[in-house]
Amino acid sequence: MTESAVLTSLTDKLSASREAARVLATATTAQKNDALRAIAAAIGQNESRILPANELDLANGRENGLSSGLQDRLRLDPGRLAALSSAVLEIVALPDPIGDVVRGSRLENGLQLTQVRVPFGVVGAIYEARPNVTIDIAALALKSGNAVVLRGGSAAENTNRVLVEVIQSALVEVGLPLEAVQTIDEFGREGATQLMQARGYVDVLIPRGSAQLIDTVVRESKVPVIETGAGVVHVFLDDSADLTTAVEIVHNAKVQRPSVCNALETLLVSAGSAERLLPPVIERLRDAGVTIHGDARTAAIVGDVVPATDEDWSTEYMSLDLAVKVVDDLDDALAHINEYSTHHTESIITNDVARAERFLAEVDSAVVMVNASTRFTDGGEFGFGAEVGISTQKLHARGPMGLPELTSTKWIVRGSGQVRG
Amino acid sequence: MTESAVLTSLTDKLSASREAARVLATATTAQKNDALRAIAAAIGQNESRILPANELDLANGRENGLSSGLQDRLRLDPGRLAALSSAVLEIVALPDPIGDVVRGSRLENGLQLTQVRVPFGVVGAIYEARPNVTIDIAALALKSGNAVVLRGGSAAENTNRVLVEVIQSALVEVGLPLEAVQTIDEFGREGATQLMQARGYVDVLIPRGSAQLIDTVVRESKVPVIETGAGVVHVFLDDSADLTTAVEIVHNAKVQRPSVCNALETLLVSAGSAERLLPPVIERLRDAGVTIHGDARTAAIVGDVVPATDEDWSTEYMSLDLAVKVVDDLDDALAHINEYSTHHTESIITNDVARAERFLAEVDSAVVMVNASTRFTDGGEFGFGAEVGISTQKLHARGPMGLPELTSTKWIVRGSGQVRG
Repeated sequence: MTESAVLTSLTDKLSASREAARVLATATTAQKNDALRAIAAAIGQNESRILPANELDLANGRENGLSSGLQDRLRLDPGRLAALSSAVLEIVALPDPIGDVVRGSRLENGLQLTQVRVPFGVVGAIYEARPNVTIDIAALALKSGNAVVLRGGSAAENTNRVLVEVIQSALVEVGLPLEAVQTIDEFGREGATQLMQARGYVDVLIPRGSAQLIDTVVRESKVPVIETGAGVVHVFLDDSADLTTAVEIVHNAKVQRPSVCNALETLLVSAGSAERLLPPVIERLRDAGVTIHGDARTAAIVGDVVPATDEDWSTEYMSLDLAVKVVDDLDDALAHINEYSTHHTESIITNDVARAERFLAEVDSAVVMVNASTRFTDGGEFGFGAEVGISTQKLHARGPMGLPELTSTKWIVRGSGQVRG
Repeated sequence: MTESAVLTSLTDKLSASREAARVLATATTAQKNDALRAIAAAIGQNESRILPANELDLANGRENGLSSGLQDRLRLDPGRLAALSSAVLEIVALPDPIGDVVRGSRLENGLQLTQVRVPFGVVGAIYEARPNVTIDIAALALKSGNAVVLRGGSAAENTNRVLVEVIQSALVEVGLPLEAVQTIDEFGREGATQLMQARGYVDVLIPRGSAQLIDTVVRESKVPVIETGAGVVHVFLDDSADLTTAVEIVHNAKVQRPSVCNALETLLVSAGSAERLLPPVIERLRDAGVTIHGDARTAAIVGDVVPATDEDWSTEYMSLDLAVKVVDDLDDALAHINEYSTHHTESIITNDVARAERFLAEVDSAVVMVNASTRFTDGGEFGFGAEVGISTQKLHARGPMGLPELTSTKWIVRGSGQVRG
């Protein structure tokens, strides 16, 4: 297709999304839940269409040298499809945020003000070759009354096309417009570029995937973006830290699931207690197979570390690697965090009230903790039920995002003829 | 200056803003109020420095052919300075949003979660030659714990430089860093361009001024923007509208202050009652000097109108002009609003409950009203005390913005050694 043909045809699709959004905005919770149940059922019923399409993408992936890690993320099987269905049904059980009254008041002149939650309208999603995101984002968007335009990775194009067809059939079955969920994968890279320019058609864009993908979307998009970012997550062991607490939390934060954004990446230890705390903390980590990238003072205490360079302090390893630095004191720790943190999650291990409060007040991150594992930064753990992602920006949403973070608000003003004097 | 020299020196300034923001984030309400009182006093004490600088800008403006309207916005005099001081003192009286608990809970594992309001950090403002915005934004930003970087119009450069110096002296007087309020006017257009690229230094950018300025910032900025937009505001007269209510609200919405964004721009009238409602509504408007731009059906009823073209339906006149259209019914009105509204404010005049509720539910605007003048869309009228602007975007803030809309949030997690299982 030529660029202008892409634009015309993409604009038609986005216009259809806008119209579908108008219908969804006033759909009842019952209708939206019916749609989600129909989608969950349809995923199971269409296994024989979905899996061959996925097989085709996998075959193309192998031919194009897709890494085995990416092949694994791309792969669907009956078990994974069943898990996707269950996840959709879990969203049925969550409260519908639309119509919730955020605040309200009656003015002196008798006007009644109510601020209520409304859908964004059209949510765009740009992500990489993970077909589960197709189902996941579509279900979250529908529950919150939004239409969604999906741009998945080209490596999952066949799988996503069939998944979207399956979702659309389920929507039609319950009387909702099929354009509520659309893919623009057929427009390739040019489609993604145009989606990022589509002000007036798309209300918010959510990138999901690698730091590079998110960075590209944040830099190029003219549509407002909710940034779900990387986590260079810190734990600081204060002089007053309890030893067992320090050992257990550092181990949990690094080892329990190293490949996720709330896993620990840099451990800071106060110099006054480094000799007391570091040896048992590091021993427990080494037993779990963690490679230590340490500064000179760390090496002097625990020996045999990979010498840490400046790059280590900025690295999100997402693996069994940990940067470790002995800092002078809390001030030094705060300065290090201020310089290197991605403002996701930081935790202090301490029994000193004043230092705990200073850490909570001065660390400028989405989530700040005292005596807890950073792994708790999670929508599920926070009790949100489903998680849209973890926002590391300050506008609109910060930290784990649930369904309410996929909504905007609207002011309702009820009068009886009031005019302004 | 060469481009790279601008960049180095601007980056230094923005780094200083970040450092100042760290101090402000933990400043007490008392400290911030002291600063505001010192600023209010300093404005009065420095009249003899401010007014000559303003006179210089005005002289340059006359030489460069600045319109008389813009010259008026640029002009300061003792009365206007006193009003600016009073406005700063009014902000002292407002509650400090920082530290407010938004929500919280205790998890099953004993973790205590609290979501609290925190400052954004560094707020950027890009605006045109209105020196009052310099004081206004600086005061609102300081009260909400933010540092602010100001880029005013070059036509007000001398006035703004002196105003910022006056503010900075007041900050130093109360022990706060002077870099909390900085101007980058000396870097000219290149400075504005760099400010829009300054991700990591500036947390949010607020454009204030013409639709063109706002549009440029929204399109070019890589920093998240809060868009304060134009208002193509509609009133719809339903068949069941009370005549007196219709006449009074339409008159108030159009005539009381036509130059602002919440003033009425397009009147829609249901065909079934156009003959009953339009003549008295239009007569009252014509008595007030309003020019009617009407469609053919309007002309047939009230005669002597400027024929409305498609452009009229998209125009924010900001003057004593009004576009008027007879629509078939509520559906037709909703379709027109959906096509032409800027999603600022719309009001229905009706006594029909079902149609009132449909209008409230289906019109996708920041503020939707029943039987009230659109002029009430205003932070002051809503009881917010001060107004940062009226957001027409859906992300973060929608409608009139008060101090809480200049904040972000942070999750505080207090534990006693919890790890994730």
